[in-house]
Amino acid sequence: MRISTRLYVHEMLDGRRRHGGLFLAADAVICTLILLNVAAVVLETLPGWSDRYGNWFLGIELVSVFIFSIEYLLRLWSCVEDRQHDYRHPVFGRLRYAVTPLAIIDLLAVLPFYLYFIIPVDLRILRMARLIRLLKITRYSPALRSLFAVIKGESRSMLGAVMLMSIAVLLASTFMYGLEREAQPEVFGSIPQAMWWGIVTLTTVGYGDVTPITPLGKVFGALVTLFGIGIFALPTAILAAGFARELGKQDFVVTVARVAKVPVFHGLDPVILAEIAALLTPMQVPNRYTVLRRGEEGSALYFIIQGQVEVGLPHGAVDLGPGEFFGEMSLLSGLDRRNATITTLSDCQFLVLEAPDFQELAKRVPELRERFDEVARRRAADNRFASAAGKSAQSGD
Amino acid sequence: MRISTRLYVHEMLDGRRRHGGLFLAADAVICTLILLNVAAVVLETLPGWSDRYGNWFLGIELVSVFIFSIEYLLRLWSCVEDRQHDYRHPVFGRLRYAVTPLAIIDLLAVLPFYLYFIIPVDLRILRMARLIRLLKITRYSPALRSLFAVIKGESRSMLGAVMLMSIAVLLASTFMYGLEREAQPEVFGSIPQAMWWGIVTLTTVGYGDVTPITPLGKVFGALVTLFGIGIFALPTAILAAGFARELGKQDFVVTVARVAKVPVFHGLDPVILAEIAALLTPMQVPNRYTVLRRGEEGSALYFIIQGQVEVGLPHGAVDLGPGEFFGEMSLLSGLDRRNATITTLSDCQFLVLEAPDFQELAKRVPELRERFDEVARRRAADNRFASAAGKSAQSGD
Amino acid sequence: MRISTRLYVHEMLDGRRRHGGLFLAADAVICTLILLNVAAVVLETLPGWSDRYGNWFLGIELVSVFIFSIEYLLRLWSCVEDRQHDYRHPVFGRLRYAVTPLAIIDLLAVLPFYLYFIIPVDLRILRMARLIRLLKITRYSPALRSLFAVIKGESRSMLGAVMLMSIAVLLASTFMYGLEREAQPEVFGSIPQAMWWGIVTLTTVGYGDVTPITPLGKVFGALVTLFGIGIFALPTAILAAGFARELGKQDFVVTVARVAKVPVFHGLDPVILAEIAALLTPMQVPNRYTVLRRGEEGSALYFIIQGQVEVGLPHGAVDLGPGEFFGEMSLLSGLDRRNATITTLSDCQFLVLEAPDFQELAKRVPELRERFDEVARRRAADNRFASAAGKSAQSGD
Amino acid sequence: MRISTRLYVHEMLDGRRRHGGLFLAADAVICTLILLNVAAVVLETLPGWSDRYGNWFLGIELVSVFIFSIEYLLRLWSCVEDRQHDYRHPVFGRLRYAVTPLAIIDLLAVLPFYLYFIIPVDLRILRMARLIRLLKITRYSPALRSLFAVIKGESRSMLGAVMLMSIAVLLASTFMYGLEREAQPEVFGSIPQAMWWGIVTLTTVGYGDVTPITPLGKVFGALVTLFGIGIFALPTAILAAGFARELGKQDFVVTVARVAKVPVFHGLDPVILAEIAALLTPMQVPNRYTVLRRGEEGSALYFIIQGQVEVGLPHGAVDLGPGEFFGEMSLLSGLDRRNATITTLSDCQFLVLEAPDFQELAKRVPELRERFDEVARRRAADNRFASAAGKSAQSGD
Repeated sequence: MRISTRLYVHEMLDGRRRHGGLFLAADAVICTLILLNVAAVVLETLPGWSDRYGNWFLGIELVSVFIFSIEYLLRLWSCVEDRQHDYRHPVFGRLRYAVTPLAIIDLLAVLPFYLYFIIPVDLRILRMARLIRLLKITRYSPALRSLFAVIKGESRSMLGAVMLMSIAVLLASTFMYGLEREAQPEVFGSIPQAMWWGIVTLTTVGYGDVTPITPLGKVFGALVTLFGIGIFALPTAILAAGFARELGKQDFVVTVARVAKVPVFHGLDPVILAEIAALLTPMQVPNRYTVLRRGEEGSALYFIIQGQVEVGLPHGAVDLGPGEFFGEMSLLSGLDRRNATITTLSDCQFLVLEAPDFQELAKRVPELRERFDEVARRRAADNRFASAAGKSAQSGD
Repeated sequence: MRISTRLYVHEMLDGRRRHGGLFLAADAVICTLILLNVAAVVLETLPGWSDRYGNWFLGIELVSVFIFSIEYLLRLWSCVEDRQHDYRHPVFGRLRYAVTPLAIIDLLAVLPFYLYFIIPVDLRILRMARLIRLLKITRYSPALRSLFAVIKGESRSMLGAVMLMSIAVLLASTFMYGLEREAQPEVFGSIPQAMWWGIVTLTTVGYGDVTPITPLGKVFGALVTLFGIGIFALPTAILAAGFARELGKQDFVVTVARVAKVPVFHGLDPVILAEIAALLTPMQVPNRYTVLRRGEEGSALYFIIQGQVEVGLPHGAVDLGPGEFFGEMSLLSGLDRRNATITTLSDCQFLVLEAPDFQELAKRVPELRERFDEVARRRAADNRFASAAGKSAQSGD
Repeated sequence: MRISTRLYVHEMLDGRRRHGGLFLAADAVICTLILLNVAAVVLETLPGWSDRYGNWFLGIELVSVFIFSIEYLLRLWSCVEDRQHDYRHPVFGRLRYAVTPLAIIDLLAVLPFYLYFIIPVDLRILRMARLIRLLKITRYSPALRSLFAVIKGESRSMLGAVMLMSIAVLLASTFMYGLEREAQPEVFGSIPQAMWWGIVTLTTVGYGDVTPITPLGKVFGALVTLFGIGIFALPTAILAAGFARELGKQDFVVTVARVAKVPVFHGLDPVILAEIAALLTPMQVPNRYTVLRRGEEGSALYFIIQGQVEVGLPHGAVDLGPGEFFGEMSLLSGLDRRNATITTLSDCQFLVLEAPDFQELAKRVPELRERFDEVARRRAADNRFASAAGKSAQSGD
Repeated sequence: MRISTRLYVHEMLDGRRRHGGLFLAADAVICTLILLNVAAVVLETLPGWSDRYGNWFLGIELVSVFIFSIEYLLRLWSCVEDRQHDYRHPVFGRLRYAVTPLAIIDLLAVLPFYLYFIIPVDLRILRMARLIRLLKITRYSPALRSLFAVIKGESRSMLGAVMLMSIAVLLASTFMYGLEREAQPEVFGSIPQAMWWGIVTLTTVGYGDVTPITPLGKVFGALVTLFGIGIFALPTAILAAGFARELGKQDFVVTVARVAKVPVFHGLDPVILAEIAALLTPMQVPNRYTVLRRGEEGSALYFIIQGQVEVGLPHGAVDLGPGEFFGEMSLLSGLDRRNATITTLSDCQFLVLEAPDFQELAKRVPELRERFDEVARRRAADNRFASAAGKSAQSGD
């Protein structure tokens, strides 16, 4: 059975379909274009370059707009295939996709160019608008995405820190205005002017273009600087705590409570649960990680504690979520293990049970064996798995 | 039964009574006034603005003083209704309230204006005193309050850091005074003068208005700067650890020990406790969070581990604290669930037991069922709950 | 029975003997003198002050030397009474005490004054040497002591960070020397000169007295500054982790393993241990904290997990360490509870068992009752406790 | 039986063979030479020093090259003896070693000198290349190595931070270029020029050589600086979290799950496992730590949780890894305890069981006794241990 072109395009743009080389090529082209654009915007301002290399810069611009426009339209066309979000409706689903931050950036990357032909706008503003294309790169950087996640997670505290820093700047500047106004009317003549000193000093930039010169001003300035350290340390401190929590989440531990929440272990005797917990190893993998590859010989059971994985079969896929398990499927279910590639759809936490440990456990606790057998029977009868297996069987891979 | 006007006013000012729109309007008015005041103080100092927009600035001042005065008097009048602190005595209770930091700020926000008519004071100092009104905004920002909590929690270490930084500044300045005194008598002529260099350098502000010029001074200055980094990193480091602890508190775990401390589970067999622990989910909510809203269909039991909640009934309220539980009350107690809104009175930690899990647990452990039934009987007979229920019945909502 | 004068003086100087007011007065006098000294050293350098207030400065110096000398001699005389360290030998014990950092600071605080009369030394160096007295204040600041503990605990990593920063400064300066040497021979003429730029830039002080001016120098300078941020962030990062660990130590948890290590619970059935663990509450107190005060009605048992406490009786004291317990002593031992004040001799961790919980536990586990009774019998027969109790009985307080 | 010279040299260079004094001498010579080289490179640039002390500098250079060359060749010759990595093949093993970072640094430390005689190169570049020798020192500093480990562990986040900082610099500079271009064409005339301001400001260096002067530029500059603090705090925050995780790893706890994974305890009753867990103490030691020294009387069993140790016998060694145990070997195995020195081959985590606790445990749980006896029998028959013991017996030490 053939996969629809739209799904193929969607998976390619989404970085899910890695084989074929096409994806990597598309990725490389877009990333290269983004960097070329940034270089063009920056270098165009060098004296003489605009005249000398103007054609090159224009060429980059035209190629960029052409490719980014096609990319945007392809994304809009294929977004209805997205399985993680519900964009299925041909009109409203696409509208919902079009207002996501990444889609808006994709639009803004090309819109100014087209607007230029409709309404006359200053060419220089247009030029700077091209820097927005730089933000497209966040789509390709997991590191940037995880940074944004931490910053967003701490946004409430960060907002408080910004308020506190603003209050500190305001109070420091007002008092310094009172102290230095008469001595330096040209730089401390009003509170807004004094705030330039306040921000430059409290952020420890310290250009030195504006400094207090009266003794009282110096004493107050010294005290403000000293205490300002505590307040302007807040963003660093908040982010450090946020990162520490993020890392801590990765080092999750196997507890009896966690094991007891896996459905297949539900309601087992606590003593047996403690034994199972002792056999399980925690495992943490990022989004888009390939846990098992088609053809590899896996020899462990993976219980999903958090996140979603995709069981990829040659011409279709089944998603599994928390509480479900995979691996060693030939033993446990009707799925043809040799054809399954498991990739994560989000950051995931697994508990891993090695095959020998499972065999030993199953021998000692017949009840557990029965439970796994029942899941296997249920999966074999399950439409999701059956159809996937069926497709696989028909394709004859 | 009608609620007293004073209680109504108190709850409105305290942000507890959110319905009616009035509260939000009052909040918005006060916050807008505060920001207008700050803007007025800042803009008044711009050359010419004071003359041109003087009437506007005066208007803002008069309206602010009028509204802040009324707000202060209303707070003073209604504070006796406060349930979290004991301000019940008409005179001493109000005095106790009047000396809390927030009440003092409220007073200082209007006092200078009235004092101006009694004792003549420099108009410019009066103007700056209006910046104190900015501090009123802390009442409305939970983010700022939680920042203050962390800073306060680490105040002992922060004090030590300030001492260490002062010692570093003092020693560095004294030695630099000895090294640069002769080369630059106009800026290193005395230790207090050298301390300006010391603070500006060690805080890494580095204006550049005063720098060592002798070779020895430069070597010493370089070493001081290098080692100063360690000492002036202390505030950031301390606050980072404080925030990490704060976040860590939020991720509290369900342990058998924690479950065993809930009175209704007290003395149960450890094996059963371990089973219960496996079924409970931790939940952390900030102050003033509405856990259950009147009319919502809740289907879980919440055990309070830390903090206080208010069970709000149409014309009255009952407070619950650590060890008590709420939710699914129609099953467990005489309280009319459909009328109860649960809001937190402080940061709270709950353990949540889903209804189906509870039903299953109760079936397997009859002893537990009996305990919950007994609590239900006791609550039905309890005056607090009975009167609340009674009021509810009489009002006929 | 009378306490020896030497022990009394030792305890007074050590901050252990808080009653009588004398201790606080001595503390206040020494702290005031230290601050006066610092003020004198700083202010003396102001033009004219030395002439005008010379007598005052001289007076402060003479009084300081007099009091600090007496303090030093008293400490040396009474140190043999120290129970935490073994300074008992009249000569070698005192020598061992004399070479501790605090004792050396005490000596250096007065020695330069006396040396002045023996060997002629520059008066200005003598003056600065008086700043060493500032370090005496660390003895009185628990916050400073705990900061030093964290810094010392991370000293290995901090040393590594200093090495890495030095390497970064050296490499950056050498390359910048190569790039800017010809353009600015007066400030980049040699590597040592370029290092002034390197340190001022990498520490982000940025005076602006020396900046690269060639295009290549600016590009390299910008890159160095950007990557330098990572390296010069190390001290903050290391200290933040150190403080986080320090705070984490304070939030220690009750585990069965911890409970099983308390001798009185040793070898109990694990199920009973788990029950006991569920009843115990962790408690963390700093050094010199008074856990129970003479006359207070305590109603809990404290098991010492870490640290040392002193059971203070009117005219003597008994020390207890990890594994031992105190509180509710009238029930458990021959000690007269009403006369015992418990103060910590170090940072301590306790597990607290409330009296009602203890009673219930003892009823259900007769074996535990017997163990406590046996400890009580043993304590009654124990010389340490008996003599203390005996002294108490004789004194007839 | 004699140890081969090559193994002896390898162990000496690797810091494993500490006796004999030779190793320390070699270490000291190389470290001294490195520091002398750095000093020479730095001081040579001082005006006049090159002429005056030229012979000294040349001498240092020749001695350095001689010794570093010999060191490099010895390392290359003896690397085939390395037991941690597989460099056994005389040609390919040595090639694999030659491309490790440390081996490349060793080569680069001497190569430029020899190249100078082949191809003419600027003497000044040659001079700077000598600074590479400074990197050789990382081999001798465990503190630096652990810093690198943390930085490497966080490299993904650090890369994201560098990207975010670059984006921030680019956007800030481009906008400032738009705002200040006309007012200050000489310093904001192009985006690359404006980026000098952007980096100097956002890193808070703030030389003050380029500052915005238009009102709009100042407002934008102030905002950029304020928000830049959050972005440029990321490296510190990331590293702080990394160090906190590193420290957290060191404070590992004894859990039943951890104990259950030690093979000798595998499959024991959970209640017995809990008892054993209560008796075990966690212990964390760095690489190259000597746990037990030949001749010392150890009285505890060490179970290896993580890392590798070397059981050093007079003329040979056996390695042990996770799951294995050592100590009290006379009781448990055929190894002659008195001759065994245990040193760690990596950072290690042990669980320590004191001898009396072991004896008591073995009495109560006969099954455990049998298991240890069986391991002892197996070890006695094991070739690794037998041959080691045999060698020891033959040597007759």
